[in-house]
Amino acid sequence: MIRKATVMKVYKDKYDDYKQRHDKLWPEMAEMLKAHGVHHYSIFLLEETGQLFAYLLVEDEDSFSEVAKTEICQKWWAYMAPLMETNDDLSPVSHDLKEVFYLA
Amino acid sequence: MIRKATVMKVYKDKYDDYKQRHDKLWPEMAEMLKAHGVHHYSIFLLEETGQLFAYLLVEDEDSFSEVAKTEICQKWWAYMAPLMETNDDLSPVSHDLKEVFYLA
Repeated sequence: MIRKATVMKVYKDKYDDYKQRHDKLWPEMAEMLKAHGVHHYSIFLLEETGQLFAYLLVEDEDSFSEVAKTEICQKWWAYMAPLMETNDDLSPVSHDLKEVFYLA
Repeated sequence: MIRKATVMKVYKDKYDDYKQRHDKLWPEMAEMLKAHGVHHYSIFLLEETGQLFAYLLVEDEDSFSEVAKTEICQKWWAYMAPLMETNDDLSPVSHDLKEVFYLA
C-alpha cells in the first residue's frame, strides 16, 4: 500500500456543510473509490485555516490516477465546488505533501 | 484504534535537517512510542508553508497522553527545538485536527 497525503481548502462558513455532505457520501462514490484501490481515506479539518488534510492508502498509483476521470468523481467535484477552493475543472485545489517520517 | 491528526511547523531552512533527524530516529524513542500504543505514525511536509501534518493511530488516549511526560520524549523535543516552532516547554506548537470524513 502507498501512503498519500494532500491538503485542500474549505471556506470558513462551509465547515458544517462539508462534513454533512461527507457524512452522506454517495454510495456510488464510495464504491468507485474502493474499486480503484483506495483504503482508509480520512479527511481532517484544521479549523483555524480551513485546510483539509487528506490521508489515504492506495493500492497503486495508476489505478488511483483514474479516479479523477470518472463521471461520478466529476459530479462530486461539481457538488462540492461551492464549498471549496477549486480549479477551473472544479477539482479541489490540492497540494501533495511529502512524507518525511513513518513509524509502523 | 483511534485516528489522530495534528499540525506542527518546521522552519523553512530546516526541512532537510528535520527529515534527516527523523530518518535516524533514536531507537529508544521508537520503542517508547510503540510501548504507548502508537502505530502507523506518519508525518508529511507541506513545503509551501512549513506545516507538518502528522497522522497516527493510537490504542487509547490515556496511554498516548503519557508520551509527552517521558524523559526520552522531552529529550527529543529539546533536540528538535532549533528546527521547529515550540512552546516554552520545548514541545512543538501543535494544533489538533478534527476528522470530518473516513472511508475504510
